[in-house]
Amino acid sequence: MYSHAHGQHEARPGRRRRRLGLCGGEFLRIAANHPHLEIGAVTAHSNAGATLGSLQPHLRSLADRVLEPTGVEALAGHDVVVLALPHGASGEIAAQLPDDVVVLDLGADHRLTDAAAWEQFYGSPHAGTWPYGLPELLHTDGTRQRDLLRGARRIAVPGCNVTAVTLGLQPGVAAGLIEADDVVAVLANGYSGAGKSLKTHLLASEALGSAAPYAVGGTHRHIPEIQQNLGVAGAETVRISFTPTLVPMSRGILATATARLQAGADPAAVRAAWADAYADEPFVHLLPEGQWPSTAMTLGANTALVQVAVDAAAGRVVTVTAIDNLVKGTAGGAIQSMNLALGLPETAGLTTEGVAP
Amino acid sequence: MYSHAHGQHEARPGRRRRRLGLCGGEFLRIAANHPHLEIGAVTAHSNAGATLGSLQPHLRSLADRVLEPTGVEALAGHDVVVLALPHGASGEIAAQLPDDVVVLDLGADHRLTDAAAWEQFYGSPHAGTWPYGLPELLHTDGTRQRDLLRGARRIAVPGCNVTAVTLGLQPGVAAGLIEADDVVAVLANGYSGAGKSLKTHLLASEALGSAAPYAVGGTHRHIPEIQQNLGVAGAETVRISFTPTLVPMSRGILATATARLQAGADPAAVRAAWADAYADEPFVHLLPEGQWPSTAMTLGANTALVQVAVDAAAGRVVTVTAIDNLVKGTAGGAIQSMNLALGLPETAGLTTEGVAP
Amino acid sequence: MYSHAHGQHEARPGRRRRRLGLCGGEFLRIAANHPHLEIGAVTAHSNAGATLGSLQPHLRSLADRVLEPTGVEALAGHDVVVLALPHGASGEIAAQLPDDVVVLDLGADHRLTDAAAWEQFYGSPHAGTWPYGLPELLHTDGTRQRDLLRGARRIAVPGCNVTAVTLGLQPGVAAGLIEADDVVAVLANGYSGAGKSLKTHLLASEALGSAAPYAVGGTHRHIPEIQQNLGVAGAETVRISFTPTLVPMSRGILATATARLQAGADPAAVRAAWADAYADEPFVHLLPEGQWPSTAMTLGANTALVQVAVDAAAGRVVTVTAIDNLVKGTAGGAIQSMNLALGLPETAGLTTEGVAP
Amino acid sequence: MYSHAHGQHEARPGRRRRRLGLCGGEFLRIAANHPHLEIGAVTAHSNAGATLGSLQPHLRSLADRVLEPTGVEALAGHDVVVLALPHGASGEIAAQLPDDVVVLDLGADHRLTDAAAWEQFYGSPHAGTWPYGLPELLHTDGTRQRDLLRGARRIAVPGCNVTAVTLGLQPGVAAGLIEADDVVAVLANGYSGAGKSLKTHLLASEALGSAAPYAVGGTHRHIPEIQQNLGVAGAETVRISFTPTLVPMSRGILATATARLQAGADPAAVRAAWADAYADEPFVHLLPEGQWPSTAMTLGANTALVQVAVDAAAGRVVTVTAIDNLVKGTAGGAIQSMNLALGLPETAGLTTEGVAP
Repeated sequence: MYSHAHGQHEARPGRRRRRLGLCGGEFLRIAANHPHLEIGAVTAHSNAGATLGSLQPHLRSLADRVLEPTGVEALAGHDVVVLALPHGASGEIAAQLPDDVVVLDLGADHRLTDAAAWEQFYGSPHAGTWPYGLPELLHTDGTRQRDLLRGARRIAVPGCNVTAVTLGLQPGVAAGLIEADDVVAVLANGYSGAGKSLKTHLLASEALGSAAPYAVGGTHRHIPEIQQNLGVAGAETVRISFTPTLVPMSRGILATATARLQAGADPAAVRAAWADAYADEPFVHLLPEGQWPSTAMTLGANTALVQVAVDAAAGRVVTVTAIDNLVKGTAGGAIQSMNLALGLPETAGLTTEGVAP
Repeated sequence: MYSHAHGQHEARPGRRRRRLGLCGGEFLRIAANHPHLEIGAVTAHSNAGATLGSLQPHLRSLADRVLEPTGVEALAGHDVVVLALPHGASGEIAAQLPDDVVVLDLGADHRLTDAAAWEQFYGSPHAGTWPYGLPELLHTDGTRQRDLLRGARRIAVPGCNVTAVTLGLQPGVAAGLIEADDVVAVLANGYSGAGKSLKTHLLASEALGSAAPYAVGGTHRHIPEIQQNLGVAGAETVRISFTPTLVPMSRGILATATARLQAGADPAAVRAAWADAYADEPFVHLLPEGQWPSTAMTLGANTALVQVAVDAAAGRVVTVTAIDNLVKGTAGGAIQSMNLALGLPETAGLTTEGVAP
Repeated sequence: MYSHAHGQHEARPGRRRRRLGLCGGEFLRIAANHPHLEIGAVTAHSNAGATLGSLQPHLRSLADRVLEPTGVEALAGHDVVVLALPHGASGEIAAQLPDDVVVLDLGADHRLTDAAAWEQFYGSPHAGTWPYGLPELLHTDGTRQRDLLRGARRIAVPGCNVTAVTLGLQPGVAAGLIEADDVVAVLANGYSGAGKSLKTHLLASEALGSAAPYAVGGTHRHIPEIQQNLGVAGAETVRISFTPTLVPMSRGILATATARLQAGADPAAVRAAWADAYADEPFVHLLPEGQWPSTAMTLGANTALVQVAVDAAAGRVVTVTAIDNLVKGTAGGAIQSMNLALGLPETAGLTTEGVAP
Repeated sequence: MYSHAHGQHEARPGRRRRRLGLCGGEFLRIAANHPHLEIGAVTAHSNAGATLGSLQPHLRSLADRVLEPTGVEALAGHDVVVLALPHGASGEIAAQLPDDVVVLDLGADHRLTDAAAWEQFYGSPHAGTWPYGLPELLHTDGTRQRDLLRGARRIAVPGCNVTAVTLGLQPGVAAGLIEADDVVAVLANGYSGAGKSLKTHLLASEALGSAAPYAVGGTHRHIPEIQQNLGVAGAETVRISFTPTLVPMSRGILATATARLQAGADPAAVRAAWADAYADEPFVHLLPEGQWPSTAMTLGANTALVQVAVDAAAGRVVTVTAIDNLVKGTAGGAIQSMNLALGLPETAGLTTEGVAP
């Protein structure tokens, strides 16, 4: 079989749309080399009529593609539709698409099950929940999220920071080895996560040679999504201090996430729990003891590299997870879930080899 | 009056010596423009005989200086001697210097009061404790460390990461607003902190475009020093999960440090406590509410820029502190303490203007 | 004596104004530590009423300054006025200032003597020529430009790229050792040269990990200014292929400029010519043979570091010059010229020590 | 059919070997996803016995591979052998391999036809010439180098800088539009080109925020190789001023190469010549008029992106070429030539989509 993939390119001003602009481009980069995909319509709003090469010249095989106006007409006749829109916009379009079309929403609209949490962090009505696109998410019954993605026709792709923090901590939650009620996560983030939004603090002259935090103090929209995932993995109460920091790299997330070792838990059991959780995962790898991940190891690859250690003196388990925010963090993860939805090999079109150094 | 400053440049292999090599160079950079200093002998070990310009060509006014062999002869006749040596070596040299000479140890030998902690983290006999060179350190009696530095003749310069984390958290400890028994600190560190050690992971090809942690899980030697400082500020028990991460910048430390809000504490009291602690400090500034520090704001300056927020949902106080690891973090802080020791204006030769963007 | 310095901050949209915004900030950074300056009014257009700290938080000693509306009222009563305006705007304001006020124009309006060249490259009427603020510029009569700056009351500050290329090549022109009719210059430029203009190609996500040229093929406005300077140094005809390239650093210009060795010239005479030209210069240094400049050596300093070599096989003299585009390239050079104009020591308030590594 | 690929990993000290170490790793990264390759023995010298994952953890699918000692035994039974050795070492090993084995030499030993030029720049005896692995190289008879690579069993892979400069200039040489006797090329180079050599100037702390030249003044070993290629394309005399500059990125070469427009040549013919030369090339693309290449556009891809302009005032044609030095510049180019040698589709296993932003 073959499928058509469709990436949307928003062009109205504002942070969200631009970030998704990048996601759309990255989806096309991977899709262009996917053995089972044929790229159909590529649409945009204000950029409709332009060639893709004029906007994303690194996608050589698609350089001559002319962007079509976004709309149901352009989307008709595809097996897969990728929505990269500002939040609030995807539900409306999805409703107009046939039920048997696989719709991947790279935005946040359909990730949360808790409408109150949605409204608190996004300030708009909840658009409903779609199957959550993190195949490795652990469930308390021992199953994994991928079982819910096989044959799915609507998929909510996770947030990039959420993927990194969830993969780092969930083995300890599922094994009852860490307390989830006082998690602290600090992330080093590349600038591509902020997309093409034209803001002074995103300029190269401000970014080069500097590190700076943002959304500090419990305001980041990824917080409820992390709470939801760790809840699925078995945590009763999840409280998290979450601080992302922009550092001078284009891609990558390095997530340092720590939680208290469960009272009475055996520190010696920690490593085994993480090893068991990811032993058979094609894209999530626990590194050999003593080797710590770097974001460069994952550049351009769909991998999440994890390491864990017990700090007995501090009474905490420390995990570090590295991903490429645009691949495993967004477009690659989306294709992994799409593969499951379409009944393709889960790894089709995705690489585990990072572009390093 | 005037003084002679002396910077040592180690040349035997190994991480410590090289890092100190940078510290020595940075001390000379600032000293060269200090109104009350005249640079005397500049010494080295294997590099003796070379010109400073061949090793540190950015120091133009000293380019023709020939490095003398390190030894008591070269050090004789100076009012100030700066030791930038591998740990274990400074005590021996200091013992041979007259008591009235101001000796600044940029290394770790004389920072810790707890000999057991020293031996646990450094694996060598404790060399004794010198007055600690962090003028802003708060004491439970309401005084500050600078009172102990006036007229001092031996000064232990703090570790760079220690300065950042201590300045971020101590107002909350001193005011009894945060619990110090479960502190979590994650730092974004520039590569100059690792100095000129020739190691593969410090190569530009590995560093560029990548973020990576090191010394994870309670092993970093700066941990007992942070515990000591927060103890001086009033904490009974200090436990800290400390994770430094290398990010692609040459200079700078961005320290995100968080602690639980003390049970029953008034969140509204937090900002006032930090503001009071630093209201009169010439180099440590609490930024206006809502403005967060970046390392670029402190580049080349002796400033530490701090911001604090309360995350009520997480029950934690979050602080972010930015410094230039080689200035406020090492050489600038050393000169600030030296100014106090010599009875000079505390701010002499030091700037608060960062080289940004 | 003392003087008031005044930095203007434009706020209307467009590349030029923003770049000057940076220049204005950098002028204040240096002026804040100048022993003979007192900073008077700091003005802006759309940012009037804001604190300087909200826009340029790295300037700590000026953080509470409130920006005044730009106008002759605010400028009254100062001994020095710095204009950082879009080209075309400075002449008008300067005309309203008393003749005895030192006016430094950081913009391009008054640099060129050739009105036709001005109109060709800038597309607007020529505003007239002011004394050119490059003290080291060689004249065919053996004098240097600084003689024309002593006591000057109007000074046109050179373009940053122009300063780098001129200083690299002029000794060979003045000594008749190189042919100026086929110069090739390629520059590696930091992003601060583009200022705070909000353009997609200036975003960190685009810049990090990438190098890209701009203004290729004879279109850059600095070309006629380089031709003018090499003419002053003695060249009859100057033709130059000039290509700037943006590389992932915030500050710095590394200018590689090459010209054919004059037919019959003695290659052995080349080094001596460059050494003689800069032997007594406080800020322009020919490095020892075999040592090549890097931009980091000049970060934050008013230095220009030069090296020269003869490529006999290619028949060309190759020069490499490193400067900090915002210091020697703009604000530092402006203060150097201002010192001459005010009869102060030429080096007052300026450092030769770079902030490296 | 399938083939075994073999990458050597040198471990003795010295710049050359380490650079090749990177090349070896990059070859494996691409080969791991090549549809017609199966990776056989991977060998090393001092690292023999180590896992590949401990040295190059970004290559996840090969992480458990144990490096075998380099030697004919390990190399036996492979269809393809890749040599990544210090120059001087590959000829000896190649001589021991069967004639029907495809041997790819990533080193310089067999690139030059002129033994005298070899000895001048490499200071060792010439090891003989192998078919040159640049498929797009133009010949005066209208053919291209790829015709000589079909069925070849020994291939000399070009130098990375050589590939960039040759592809930029050869269309003008072949069309008689530019004079090759006064070429000037200045390159912005990422640090991965210097590999893992442990040298101070390659440290991240020195590289970040800085640009610096190396091998200035006609000393770089790639010069005779460029001269050879432009000669093959039709130039009688080739003289080139060649200056590489290290800029703060891990990968990428941006080559600005300029030559005088041939006397009497029609500037309007320039663009057509470049367009014709690359119209049918799968990996070398002339960008649309006005769009200039950046290295990020080629990251991880086997593409070379070229743009050309005529600077009438300077009388020069300016070309800018961007490549990934480790892909089209080395390992990707090697696989492209290998595909031709093995009768596989020339594009097998190679992508044209860059990992950007």
